[in-house]
Amino acid sequence: MKKPVTFEILKSQPGTLGRAGVIHTPHGDIETPAFVVVGTKGTVKSLKPEDMEAYIGNQVALANTYHLYLQPGSDLVQEAGGLHTFMNWDKPTITDSGGFQVFSLGAAFGKGVTKFAQGDVAPDEKAGLNVYSKELAQEHGKLCVIDEEGVTFTSHIDGSMHRFTAERSIEIQHQIGADIIIAFDECTSPSADYEYQVEAMERTHRWAKRSILAHKQNFEALKKQGLLGVVQGGRHLDLRKKSAETLAAMDFDGFAIGGSFSKEDLGDSLKVVNEVLPEDKPRHLLGIGEPQDIMQGVAMGCDTFDCVAPTRLARTGTIYANVNGTHTRLNLMNAKYQRDFSKLDESCDCYVCQNYTKAYLAHLFKAREMLGAHLASIHNLCYIVNFTKRLREEILNG
Amino acid sequence: MKKPVTFEILKSQPGTLGRAGVIHTPHGDIETPAFVVVGTKGTVKSLKPEDMEAYIGNQVALANTYHLYLQPGSDLVQEAGGLHTFMNWDKPTITDSGGFQVFSLGAAFGKGVTKFAQGDVAPDEKAGLNVYSKELAQEHGKLCVIDEEGVTFTSHIDGSMHRFTAERSIEIQHQIGADIIIAFDECTSPSADYEYQVEAMERTHRWAKRSILAHKQNFEALKKQGLLGVVQGGRHLDLRKKSAETLAAMDFDGFAIGGSFSKEDLGDSLKVVNEVLPEDKPRHLLGIGEPQDIMQGVAMGCDTFDCVAPTRLARTGTIYANVNGTHTRLNLMNAKYQRDFSKLDESCDCYVCQNYTKAYLAHLFKAREMLGAHLASIHNLCYIVNFTKRLREEILNG
Repeated sequence: MKKPVTFEILKSQPGTLGRAGVIHTPHGDIETPAFVVVGTKGTVKSLKPEDMEAYIGNQVALANTYHLYLQPGSDLVQEAGGLHTFMNWDKPTITDSGGFQVFSLGAAFGKGVTKFAQGDVAPDEKAGLNVYSKELAQEHGKLCVIDEEGVTFTSHIDGSMHRFTAERSIEIQHQIGADIIIAFDECTSPSADYEYQVEAMERTHRWAKRSILAHKQNFEALKKQGLLGVVQGGRHLDLRKKSAETLAAMDFDGFAIGGSFSKEDLGDSLKVVNEVLPEDKPRHLLGIGEPQDIMQGVAMGCDTFDCVAPTRLARTGTIYANVNGTHTRLNLMNAKYQRDFSKLDESCDCYVCQNYTKAYLAHLFKAREMLGAHLASIHNLCYIVNFTKRLREEILNG
Repeated sequence: MKKPVTFEILKSQPGTLGRAGVIHTPHGDIETPAFVVVGTKGTVKSLKPEDMEAYIGNQVALANTYHLYLQPGSDLVQEAGGLHTFMNWDKPTITDSGGFQVFSLGAAFGKGVTKFAQGDVAPDEKAGLNVYSKELAQEHGKLCVIDEEGVTFTSHIDGSMHRFTAERSIEIQHQIGADIIIAFDECTSPSADYEYQVEAMERTHRWAKRSILAHKQNFEALKKQGLLGVVQGGRHLDLRKKSAETLAAMDFDGFAIGGSFSKEDLGDSLKVVNEVLPEDKPRHLLGIGEPQDIMQGVAMGCDTFDCVAPTRLARTGTIYANVNGTHTRLNLMNAKYQRDFSKLDESCDCYVCQNYTKAYLAHLFKAREMLGAHLASIHNLCYIVNFTKRLREEILNG
């Protein structure tokens, strides 16, 4: 059977791990390096697909398994004809596994996360994790409990109890129907100790195997969706290397790299990982999207990147700008932009910079007009998408 | 000098006052009858001009003098190059006079409006209304005081004191620079008594004269902006007739009809007014936009209509639909639409109805995603704009 997601390297950058290529998917190609626009709940905030096509030129959007599972429900998305039909976007899509959100959002009520190491399951429920109860969670004072089988968590929407296992995450991602899906993983805090990082990584590797098995059991999905494994290991280079080696030996269509680093060790970690991962499969760096980080990621052999920052910042009136060659951010709520009739960024020729001034956007934000977030989102996404495209062109042009 | 705003009748409807025509403006033609999209603060909420052009097809947008004066300031709009440049909309625009908002918003803190009849100016300030003070307003417990010269009001944004006179309203509208501007008027409550309606109407007539004078004193504006007078008179047919006769004798480029009616006497009032107003000048019905009312307005000789309802309803998840031939509203927050994979309105072929389902919009509204308001606004505006266009076609086709 032909794999639904394949990768082709067009040119490698001498002296680095960087490469320019193409990811082929059932909904079209992704020319890499590429920035993946985030559409958590089946919508890239404030943008319709035609806006992306006409004004941004992104090739792919990433939705979130945890969010769509809770609202409107992955079964509803399936009934609607899948993610592409539901959101009217006929280009490539990715869903992440929901692992990160289960840990960060399910437990995001400021109550922390309890993690049980392998074997050390919830004390009163050793025999029956699937009957994990709200009472047990309350007893532990936590909203998310991890065990060998999976994660039990409470919804950030209504506090209801839910459970994800590797198999369930893959099943949900089959329902949603993105071109590229991601194995269920545990995303650790960079501050977790070495011992815990080892445990979590090894559990992630076992979940990776189970994710592959679950995916292979659904023949229809196997024809249409490619599966990525997730390299973890926190800040520890030895663990990152081990994680990459372990996953490289598994039958994945590509790899995602969990973003639990601190900024200063990003480059070293990616180098260790990408020297190990097979060259002929695509590599996605999860949740990283600042220009400097993307530049480093590309040099270290990553192909795609996603991040909520461009649209999240846009909604608060913060725009990207290149000021004297430095990537920076400007907050349009600052009084000095009120009568500034210049474009958002002198170096940018996006639709917004061609047609509007800082003063107009400052007015929209001050007046709490939705169009402000919309226009700033177009600009910020253009800025990052075009920045990443230029890195691709540099590699292609040697 | 050639008038900047002129009107041409293409065909009249036999047996009614209805007509199909064209309003010529410096920024292009408005084919009438037409629905005017409302962009209160220099933005049609959630829509960029390209969205209007590609998805709605409205020919004209109406901004608000009161709002733009307070935020970002009409001087700032002027400095930006005027409303068209500021908001990137190069088609016809209208500003209303701000009269309605001064009364309804300036006084909208639930404290009511004090109105002094002609001569009966603020008791302590007979000699100097321009030094009207916050203390005086507080003494009267009101946020808006009307006198012969104009209106003193408090801003709904920061409580600061401001004053509009006929001259000041026109000056502000010159700064904003819309193609069509409107004389300063007093919009009364339909429940005000007859005596007060007479007073307010006569004051509005005096302000109309002063608005014309103020407009004629600015030669640059006179070349680029057409001025409409406002017919008032509340629910009283004799007053409506008198108001129309008085204004018809003045040198206006067209007329607006103040919307202080109750629904049942709309038709009769418009008939009385439009039988008097000169045929060869355009007539705008202020703030009226329900399909039934537009149909009646067209039959009674009105050419243009504006209303915030289509976008305001859209933002709450309420959409227009034609159900078995009846114009109705559906609230997408209703649970029954959650799994409804049909289009918003079976009779509609707008962009939204072609590409999305009720279930997707219901999801967006439930998840508080901005795209919901955006798509619902496109649909609702298409619904009303196209409805009005069909009335035009019916007249043209006899």
